[in-house]
Amino acid sequence: MDALDALRGHLAELADLSSLGHLAAWDQRAMMPPAGAPGRAHLMATLEQIAHDRSTAPQIGEWLEQIEAAAGDDGLTDVDGDLVRLARRDWEQSIRVPSDLAVELARAGAEGQASWQSARAASDFAAFAPALRHNIELARELAAHLGDGDRPYDALLGLYDFGLTAARVQEVFGRLAEVLPSLVEQSAVDPQTPRLEVPVAAQEAAVAGALRRVGVTPDSWRVDVSAHPFTTWMGPRDTRLTTRYEDGQLESILAALHEFGHGLYERQIAPELDRTNLGSGTSMSMHESQSKLWENHVGRHPAFAALIADDLTAAGFAIEPPALQRTLELVRPSLIRVSADQMTYPLHIVLRFELERALIEGTLDVADLPTAWNDGMRRLLGVEVPDDASGVLQDVHWSSGAFGYFPSYALGCVIAAQLWETLESDAGPQADALGTGDTTAVAAWLGEHVHRFGRRLDTEPLLEHATGRGLDPEPFIRHLERLVP
Amino acid sequence: MDALDALRGHLAELADLSSLGHLAAWDQRAMMPPAGAPGRAHLMATLEQIAHDRSTAPQIGEWLEQIEAAAGDDGLTDVDGDLVRLARRDWEQSIRVPSDLAVELARAGAEGQASWQSARAASDFAAFAPALRHNIELARELAAHLGDGDRPYDALLGLYDFGLTAARVQEVFGRLAEVLPSLVEQSAVDPQTPRLEVPVAAQEAAVAGALRRVGVTPDSWRVDVSAHPFTTWMGPRDTRLTTRYEDGQLESILAALHEFGHGLYERQIAPELDRTNLGSGTSMSMHESQSKLWENHVGRHPAFAALIADDLTAAGFAIEPPALQRTLELVRPSLIRVSADQMTYPLHIVLRFELERALIEGTLDVADLPTAWNDGMRRLLGVEVPDDASGVLQDVHWSSGAFGYFPSYALGCVIAAQLWETLESDAGPQADALGTGDTTAVAAWLGEHVHRFGRRLDTEPLLEHATGRGLDPEPFIRHLERLVP
Repeated sequence: MDALDALRGHLAELADLSSLGHLAAWDQRAMMPPAGAPGRAHLMATLEQIAHDRSTAPQIGEWLEQIEAAAGDDGLTDVDGDLVRLARRDWEQSIRVPSDLAVELARAGAEGQASWQSARAASDFAAFAPALRHNIELARELAAHLGDGDRPYDALLGLYDFGLTAARVQEVFGRLAEVLPSLVEQSAVDPQTPRLEVPVAAQEAAVAGALRRVGVTPDSWRVDVSAHPFTTWMGPRDTRLTTRYEDGQLESILAALHEFGHGLYERQIAPELDRTNLGSGTSMSMHESQSKLWENHVGRHPAFAALIADDLTAAGFAIEPPALQRTLELVRPSLIRVSADQMTYPLHIVLRFELERALIEGTLDVADLPTAWNDGMRRLLGVEVPDDASGVLQDVHWSSGAFGYFPSYALGCVIAAQLWETLESDAGPQADALGTGDTTAVAAWLGEHVHRFGRRLDTEPLLEHATGRGLDPEPFIRHLERLVP
Repeated sequence: MDALDALRGHLAELADLSSLGHLAAWDQRAMMPPAGAPGRAHLMATLEQIAHDRSTAPQIGEWLEQIEAAAGDDGLTDVDGDLVRLARRDWEQSIRVPSDLAVELARAGAEGQASWQSARAASDFAAFAPALRHNIELARELAAHLGDGDRPYDALLGLYDFGLTAARVQEVFGRLAEVLPSLVEQSAVDPQTPRLEVPVAAQEAAVAGALRRVGVTPDSWRVDVSAHPFTTWMGPRDTRLTTRYEDGQLESILAALHEFGHGLYERQIAPELDRTNLGSGTSMSMHESQSKLWENHVGRHPAFAALIADDLTAAGFAIEPPALQRTLELVRPSLIRVSADQMTYPLHIVLRFELERALIEGTLDVADLPTAWNDGMRRLLGVEVPDDASGVLQDVHWSSGAFGYFPSYALGCVIAAQLWETLESDAGPQADALGTGDTTAVAAWLGEHVHRFGRRLDTEPLLEHATGRGLDPEPFIRHLERLVP
């Protein structure tokens, strides 16, 4: 079928352009000398423009019509059927956004970030409010083009997690908001508990050891340092993760395992999906579940943590496994999301979900946001916010117009626990294997039940396929209950 | 003028695509894990296809016609006049090559390189001959499309150096072939003279010292290690060079200065030419002259070499400046071009020029190439070639179809010496400044007389502008005569 070949060729080009974008972004964050920034902005804008032109090309619609008319449901292989279905979905979505709105979204996002940076430096929410208000208006306009206009937040959520709704998120997050604050209260350590001070050299040895055990090899991976840890990939055999060593604690090790989880997901997608529209992780929440699984259920597992303790001890930072274990599982309510522990972290997200949904639906005014934030932090985490910089201004997301992105962080924790329970039920308890540093059964189970599908299944169908049920917060709650002293 | 704006926008996009190609190639050679190679090949092929489509777009011809019809010679600024002139030249050249020939050239080049690699490993020229023959046929076909068919080699030469002819190269190279063998004979050291064995740590200190003195700063440059040293740039403020430390000698230091010369050229092009078709070095030979100037006339200058000796000594490899100077200027005829000294190097190129011209013009058959090579090495350098691997199979160029590229290497030496003589005549002798590690006068003179023009002037007009005359081998010969004991 000629139209299918043409569509496949076009999708392969789009996949390559996406990989080039990944490369340019990786380089910008991990390698580029600072003075290269203005030139890089031009280069990335040109690349985005080309990718946008090709994603919205009218030929895609023509090919799809020809394929759909000729094939019906029977004439295509399963993979090609999914490929055509997703190509139609992506194309319809991309042509629904008027190009002047797309340009204004990009412009306002860049301007919003600049406004946010200076407002955060001055801890002055009022200075950021106009840019935020404009971003919200644009997001509503975008939502009106994407959806039916009744549920604007759902339309935005769908950009990151197709098929997910605010109502569904609310079911899950409502349960977390109900249970977690009391677990936190029972588990929280004295805020004065001193933190570990692990020398960078010992952290480096432990990062190298952890990554070696999970299968990171230099022939096919890179591990670098950047201000914020991240993962990227240029095709299935070139995966690059970063970590950071700034704060003298163990974040570097957990961050490296977290980023490994993202990388492994992309590497284990079925090779036949490579360079198609199906050859990437299916959603932000499913991606985050993969990073959280390796961070929370492997890295913090007592058996694996004992190996980390051994590595730290061998590198000159003597620590007993139980002491390391206690540190990794410490619950300490705090102001800042990115440095939160695994029990308090989801509550930071619950708050952001409530607030951004209200902002988009018009039930919360921007002027009232700082108060709503501070009230929420008191209600969910029991902490007092001293200033906007460590409160409502701490995250970049809203400044760049990314509404609907936050939920994936906590859904990732929920899904990770759900997958881990099923994995241990299917493949048996992993303590013995993790105690020898053997994670092959974990990787194989994830490959078979999650990774290989790429985008062929959306979040909840994939989860149902892997675990027999949709989003379910109970495994995560059970995981956290074990932390209560 | 709308057409001019449209053309400028299009050229800016092409410049960005070129920078993306630079980034992908730099990453491939300096950063990419080996398993990423197949994915990278797809990605670069897609990028090349997009750049090719845009370089040959019919709209370019329409815009040019509108601009030329409306403007005549008077309606454009000088820069815009050059921009339009070069845009027409580049476009005419690109549309002359049929797309099936372009595809076959790329395919045969890739296949030729694979054939060459295995033939070189086996030192078996016959195994490479069929691929070479095919590349020559394709190069002749390309030349027939590009030129009038009478002078096929000139057409190929023009791909790297617009306006240059084989006859002009022959004038210069004939003079080198006449003078240099006798100078080599008078200067060559005993082949048994031992080589320096400089520890890598001392080399690294000397590389860092040399690059710091010439102005390489981490805010705007990167210095990495790769198998073969090279330079690339992503816009004027992001320059990346590599060196290598493999062989225990001083090549790392000279290579770093060589690559710095390439980088500085691109950085000192007038900012108004950035993201236009004029914003890059004008030719391969002029680019090579910039690298050779910093390698031969700065790095090997006794005053600068004394600082290198100091750095080596401080790093634990004690050496007196005169001893280092003798090593840097050692003349030792050898088989391999890339490790040749500054006096014998051009003779390796003269041989390649003679042979590739004869291959393209049909006066030398591929079957007779190894004998012709070995005869030439005996005649020009007085060395016996023991096998094809260290003879005719040593370079990659012909295997990838690059005929007409080699001359730029020796023309670079010639132009460098010519520029250096004029520079010292204009700005005064540089010994005192170099002795303090101050190269600002050198960089400033090159910026003013060479770099800022970008592609606005071709090689010989630029050289005439800078030195008052066209290609002239005499300054280089005078430079080499000083090496005769």
